Amino acid sequence: MKEFELIKEYFSFSQSKSDTVVEGIGDDCAVLSVPDKRQLVTSVDTLVDGVHFFSDSDPADIAYKSLAVNVSDLAAMGAKPLGFTLAIALPKVDEVWLKSFSKGLQEASADFEIPLIGGDTTQGPLTITVNVLGSVKADKAMLRKSAQLDDDIWVTGYVGDAAAALGLHGKAQSSDLNEAESYLLQRLLRPNPPITFATKLAKLAHAAIDISDGLLADLGHILEQSQCSAKIKVGSLPLSEQLIQCVGLEQAREFALNGGDDYELCFTAKHSMRNKILNLAEDFQVNVHRIGTIVEQSDEGVFLMLDGKPYQPKRKGWQHFST
Amino acid sequence: MKEFELIKEYFSFSQSKSDTVVEGIGDDCAVLSVPDKRQLVTSVDTLVDGVHFFSDSDPADIAYKSLAVNVSDLAAMGAKPLGFTLAIALPKVDEVWLKSFSKGLQEASADFEIPLIGGDTTQGPLTITVNVLGSVKADKAMLRKSAQLDDDIWVTGYVGDAAAALGLHGKAQSSDLNEAESYLLQRLLRPNPPITFATKLAKLAHAAIDISDGLLADLGHILEQSQCSAKIKVGSLPLSEQLIQCVGLEQAREFALNGGDDYELCFTAKHSMRNKILNLAEDFQVNVHRIGTIVEQSDEGVFLMLDGKPYQPKRKGWQHFST
Repeated sequence: MKEFELIKEYFSFSQSKSDTVVEGIGDDCAVLSVPDKRQLVTSVDTLVDGVHFFSDSDPADIAYKSLAVNVSDLAAMGAKPLGFTLAIALPKVDEVWLKSFSKGLQEASADFEIPLIGGDTTQGPLTITVNVLGSVKADKAMLRKSAQLDDDIWVTGYVGDAAAALGLHGKAQSSDLNEAESYLLQRLLRPNPPITFATKLAKLAHAAIDISDGLLADLGHILEQSQCSAKIKVGSLPLSEQLIQCVGLEQAREFALNGGDDYELCFTAKHSMRNKILNLAEDFQVNVHRIGTIVEQSDEGVFLMLDGKPYQPKRKGWQHFST
Repeated sequence: MKEFELIKEYFSFSQSKSDTVVEGIGDDCAVLSVPDKRQLVTSVDTLVDGVHFFSDSDPADIAYKSLAVNVSDLAAMGAKPLGFTLAIALPKVDEVWLKSFSKGLQEASADFEIPLIGGDTTQGPLTITVNVLGSVKADKAMLRKSAQLDDDIWVTGYVGDAAAALGLHGKAQSSDLNEAESYLLQRLLRPNPPITFATKLAKLAHAAIDISDGLLADLGHILEQSQCSAKIKVGSLPLSEQLIQCVGLEQAREFALNGGDDYELCFTAKHSMRNKILNLAEDFQVNVHRIGTIVEQSDEGVFLMLDGKPYQPKRKGWQHFST
């Protein structure tokens, strides 16, 4: 099967035109209208076979996650999705694999209401790069540098689930998972960034970031760029009952602080916004929890407190190429 | 070296802010202003080690080409560059390699006046994905479907050089290349899409495409989407004297028709635009040649003529995964 047939067969599920998509797949570039008085936002993430997903993972899950982790970056800006491009290197044309991948991508595209507008298919080691485009009201993007002194620090959803699920992949292949384990694995495989909630949140919040490398590491970027520190109440971390059931409370807290791949949002906002944020979260059926406060910058960075005493986590976030 | 230090060290050469770049590298997304009454265009291309470049190529050339081939897609729309993202998977942190790569990327970024606005670095087999963003005046993009009956067919620069240079890589490692060979290799390694010319061309031309898979294959996309055919005078193909010197006239024509990687433009325009196009080309020091005419659709697709007789090329374009 040739490249163009391949694109036609598996990657032509998006409507080629809409209010914003003037020209979709099929020309040298896609053409988009960015609505008046809005700015464009863009982000890119690559998922590599064996690094970001297991080689024997369901291709539908790989596809879903490839788009979800990028939509999560849009959510972190408070941006509305415009479209995405997909660049995929494939070792060979495996139609069963492609059919499943296409299905997962289509599901994510529908769930996050973001059309596929262009791409590139090429031969090579399995590598998936998604570049998302979105729009925000001019100068209203939630930036990492915008946290203010005394802001509340909030987290959406539950944190730590995905990290706990990393150990479950092997088990899922060989035996049945119990209900709690299935939930955790689903959280790892199918991240669900709160994109529609985030679009409205931009009016209420100051700084935001998505939790991809772990809460401490990602909150750290807000603190660094906003030149401030944070007090976090470890007892307020939103932990799913399934997480506590599977790994116990202490390990759950570790995963919540240092586990990656949650693709929830961490954001800061004024005290006076509390009710509005809670109402918005209810409207969009998103869980939100206040976990701490922005304080004046100090060497400590993040003060973790539990039952009125300092709390010492085991490690501090995760990076590629770290030694 | 950790991921963030790596980004800081090698990929922070672009100004973080400009009229259009509101927020550059360093947040969840970059933020751009798209000028009023303009549409956004975007395209993505991946270059894979061993598929799109030789593993022992100069990393500066790999970087330059990664951006150039994408800028070429902007040129094919008549778009003005806004910015690009870079997603790169690296097997390891090789600082000598990265330093050279960064230098080449910086050169291309300066040559094409397009800032680096975001990216992702990750561990994996060497794979480079660039996503470019540009803007066009609303509804003035040069589309593949816009060719009109009786349009002239034009080509910028010379075609066939890059294909001829593919065989020179090995020789370049082991011995000195003569002047003509060096020119050809440079054409392969450092494509020079006529981006500023193309930005102005959008007012004068109908359809356009960049020549990446070979003139016949790429012109074929215009013909298919515009539902027409073409008469091409093989004797009018713009061939560099170096190409003819190295491979002879007959093989030069084959490379011109079927060789890929030229990253020149093929475009169509009304007869009445001839003088304006020639003047524009002179202003921007771009070579342009008329090579044929758009005719009514027929099964033939492209009629190749040489000295008043039909001309039969050896093959018809190139695709990934073709069998």
